[in-house]
Amino acid sequence: MYAISLGDDRAELRPLEPWHAEEFLANLERGREFIGQFIPFGSQAVDVASARETLQRYARMRADDTGGYHGIWLDGKLVGGVLTLNLDAEQGNCEVGCWLEPAATGRGLITRAMRVLIDWVVEERGIHRIEWVAASGNTASINVARRLGMTRDGVRRQAHPYRGVRHDLEVWSILAPEWREARARAARNDH
Amino acid sequence: MYAISLGDDRAELRPLEPWHAEEFLANLERGREFIGQFIPFGSQAVDVASARETLQRYARMRADDTGGYHGIWLDGKLVGGVLTLNLDAEQGNCEVGCWLEPAATGRGLITRAMRVLIDWVVEERGIHRIEWVAASGNTASINVARRLGMTRDGVRRQAHPYRGVRHDLEVWSILAPEWREARARAARNDH
Amino acid sequence: MYAISLGDDRAELRPLEPWHAEEFLANLERGREFIGQFIPFGSQAVDVASARETLQRYARMRADDTGGYHGIWLDGKLVGGVLTLNLDAEQGNCEVGCWLEPAATGRGLITRAMRVLIDWVVEERGIHRIEWVAASGNTASINVARRLGMTRDGVRRQAHPYRGVRHDLEVWSILAPEWREARARAARNDH
Amino acid sequence: MYAISLGDDRAELRPLEPWHAEEFLANLERGREFIGQFIPFGSQAVDVASARETLQRYARMRADDTGGYHGIWLDGKLVGGVLTLNLDAEQGNCEVGCWLEPAATGRGLITRAMRVLIDWVVEERGIHRIEWVAASGNTASINVARRLGMTRDGVRRQAHPYRGVRHDLEVWSILAPEWREARARAARNDH
Amino acid sequence: MYAISLGDDRAELRPLEPWHAEEFLANLERGREFIGQFIPFGSQAVDVASARETLQRYARMRADDTGGYHGIWLDGKLVGGVLTLNLDAEQGNCEVGCWLEPAATGRGLITRAMRVLIDWVVEERGIHRIEWVAASGNTASINVARRLGMTRDGVRRQAHPYRGVRHDLEVWSILAPEWREARARAARNDH
Amino acid sequence: MYAISLGDDRAELRPLEPWHAEEFLANLERGREFIGQFIPFGSQAVDVASARETLQRYARMRADDTGGYHGIWLDGKLVGGVLTLNLDAEQGNCEVGCWLEPAATGRGLITRAMRVLIDWVVEERGIHRIEWVAASGNTASINVARRLGMTRDGVRRQAHPYRGVRHDLEVWSILAPEWREARARAARNDH
Repeated sequence: MYAISLGDDRAELRPLEPWHAEEFLANLERGREFIGQFIPFGSQAVDVASARETLQRYARMRADDTGGYHGIWLDGKLVGGVLTLNLDAEQGNCEVGCWLEPAATGRGLITRAMRVLIDWVVEERGIHRIEWVAASGNTASINVARRLGMTRDGVRRQAHPYRGVRHDLEVWSILAPEWREARARAARNDH
Repeated sequence: MYAISLGDDRAELRPLEPWHAEEFLANLERGREFIGQFIPFGSQAVDVASARETLQRYARMRADDTGGYHGIWLDGKLVGGVLTLNLDAEQGNCEVGCWLEPAATGRGLITRAMRVLIDWVVEERGIHRIEWVAASGNTASINVARRLGMTRDGVRRQAHPYRGVRHDLEVWSILAPEWREARARAARNDH
Repeated sequence: MYAISLGDDRAELRPLEPWHAEEFLANLERGREFIGQFIPFGSQAVDVASARETLQRYARMRADDTGGYHGIWLDGKLVGGVLTLNLDAEQGNCEVGCWLEPAATGRGLITRAMRVLIDWVVEERGIHRIEWVAASGNTASINVARRLGMTRDGVRRQAHPYRGVRHDLEVWSILAPEWREARARAARNDH
Repeated sequence: MYAISLGDDRAELRPLEPWHAEEFLANLERGREFIGQFIPFGSQAVDVASARETLQRYARMRADDTGGYHGIWLDGKLVGGVLTLNLDAEQGNCEVGCWLEPAATGRGLITRAMRVLIDWVVEERGIHRIEWVAASGNTASINVARRLGMTRDGVRRQAHPYRGVRHDLEVWSILAPEWREARARAARNDH
Repeated sequence: MYAISLGDDRAELRPLEPWHAEEFLANLERGREFIGQFIPFGSQAVDVASARETLQRYARMRADDTGGYHGIWLDGKLVGGVLTLNLDAEQGNCEVGCWLEPAATGRGLITRAMRVLIDWVVEERGIHRIEWVAASGNTASINVARRLGMTRDGVRRQAHPYRGVRHDLEVWSILAPEWREARARAARNDH
Repeated sequence: MYAISLGDDRAELRPLEPWHAEEFLANLERGREFIGQFIPFGSQAVDVASARETLQRYARMRADDTGGYHGIWLDGKLVGGVLTLNLDAEQGNCEVGCWLEPAATGRGLITRAMRVLIDWVVEERGIHRIEWVAASGNTASINVARRLGMTRDGVRRQAHPYRGVRHDLEVWSILAPEWREARARAARNDH
């Protein structure tokens, strides 16, 4: 029942919950190849039952306050989402991530949703360090990190074996004070 | 980060989550005597740790899709909430309930929040029967049921022993088609 | 090893335990269509392994003191049973129920067994309110409630979707003092 | 509600269940020193809550079909009991044991109750080997084994450290065919 | 990475851990008929996944300090092992056992490994009584017990139903002071 | 019972197990301030019971094959240890770490033990990437990484809040081929 408008194009951010299993599965089915280029996101959700189990796993993360999944709906259709994981409110750390089906790319949906999400972790949850991890070859993902004003912390060499290749993982981050500046900057850029 | 406006008086409905433990405890502390007149709501939450455990129990209900808790914030302060419990999407049944600290009464907050919640269970979740249970002496609670257009199904005689007395429990309900009519009626009454 | 005679016709009440899996399954198989007219009782027990699991679930209810299952043996054959569920000794509430294969109907077995069971919950366990729930169309079940001296508390409208129809559920109950009177009355009627 | 008469002296055998916590604790309190001479039976049950937990542990054994506890009531007072443990229906093995408060000794209560119990494990549950384990110095316990017609299988040397001494454990057993003979013999001796 | 030499023939004792699943399965496959003559050892490990589960079960015994499995490697190949089970450090009791594929018999591997293991349980863990259980017909196993200097405590008559026959189980044991003597004696015999 | 010599000074590496609780606690007590300079290692182990729980947690990691703890004994006294964590055999990744009480520093114990451990993860377990994480100010720890031939992957800025300060975390790593070279180099340096 909750929704946050992401702009004038009827894009909305909503909590993603177990009862969305069918929509989540459909979203994955439309984007499986594209979403799975660099990570096995959603690979365990292959039918409605396993999609529900996946969403229930996410919901238990919310209950444990270690993460949360938020869907992006475009014209009433779930097309992707943004998420927190490894959230540690006491330590002030969290990681953020995303997924998107190909037909919804090119509109800045992830960047817009991520701004809402990072604002929340920084201002409401008191998180100090927000981390972004992407395979070195995942240009689209790295561009989001850059667009959000993040800094490249380093490269975890060959940390991510996937489909037969050991990929380097780039680690980017932004700290709360940097975020506040980046947000201001982004706001100015939006105009 | 999500919020639904409940009107022009800065009242908002938001998901109530484990990280709200301190606010939830403060809300209970301000209303413990009043809230506890007829039910032991929140009686297990006596410090921040036990308040968090209570909220985590609620969050696991959401993960199991058997219920959900929503807080009502008034001027940025958590003053009460509405909830679903015993939600059974397959059977099309759920129970709804509420709590409110005394300082926030008299403004129709519960009725307003409940309309949002019942709209959601009926229209989004496909629930057919919504049940409301209240001790016979709890006039305020029964008045909400009446105001929402519910029908009195019967009285579970002496089912609720509380503070030394066995209270009758009134069971009220509204069915999906009745709700749609009641909503229309309520909308007209609002004008 | 325990057994309570239910009369002169070799009918006995015994605790129903996990090791009765084969007998329980046979009982269900003989009565599945009849037993399942209004409720899905025993529908998860389809072979010996699942019958044992079902009985173990009941046994854990006994361990938690929230219910108990008792079989009715007629001439050494398990033909049905009576049960407590949602037993809450602290609150003084419990629900009672039953099942019976068709060949054993018409002898008052359920009524006789139920009298033993309710006597026990009232006199030994201190239960104050005993509840009986039946689909409105389940005349046989409602007649048992009436025969036991119960009062109709109300109707939970359309609460029970089953085989494509939303049935009303009648809620009947008897309170401890009423039971003692009903028992006396029944005793007199028996003569 | 179930009870088996053990004779003309108002001694009865009944299932021992979690709701008997207060009676079980009282029984232990009256017999703690005597019962604890050779084994730590009931030592974890020191108040009503821990007595209930102990009984719930026993009840879960019944749910798992690995054992069961039965109380002996004398004039309506719980004075001791007999039990199966390590019951393995598939293997056809089980161990039996007992406890008794001192004021109830000297009446043959254990032997009488044990005959009912062993009859049940042999005839109803198909157990082939029934084992009895007692510290070598526990003459009373060993006499029960002898009285039941059991055979001494051997001595597990120094297997039981208790209160600063390593006791030998005598292992006695009776096999199903032996039991049937012993029962006949006992029946003759009773006359 | 740990290994204890068992002599000049490249026999080694090593901790057996979950990641050895493939080697463990291969060892069982080569010895299944021989190993399974008297006990169902390893019968649940029928593929790599179930072999890993079996080893994880053993590893949890180590975590609970109730037992531990040690493999015997001969020329770099896992051929059998020795184990503690029912280890109770507080009581000073434990049972020991073994398995071996047929091609590795006749070299005294079990006796050599068992000496290392019993030395450890006696001298490092303070175990007072070490027990050995074998089916009466299992001459090879009983000979190991005899060779280790153990004493026959008795026979648990017909305790072990296996492949259609109820076998007697011989119980042998050695106490810590006896072990120290037996070890000295064995050392002398080795010269 | 297992031990690997780390050199001529009677230093040994052994599996660290739950029954070492007393020694582990003593080791922590002697080094708590020093060990706790940059990380809360062992802070939950404050008495024998909690030390055992900590070691049991480690043992369950071994059962799950996600890590393992190894103690360093110097003259028969536990003085520190090395460990794997976040081991993922399928992905070929693991992290390594260590702790040491101050009296045992300056002898290269950690470096020697780590060489044994990394050899094992690379050659026996097939791990490709070994990671080392240290607070930027922890010169001693970073020097170990350098001495082992590791490469600095980057700095996770302000990721580690500890005792009131947000420390940067340096991430170092070595890949299997690099390790083989580093080992050869180290071997030459040892001469």
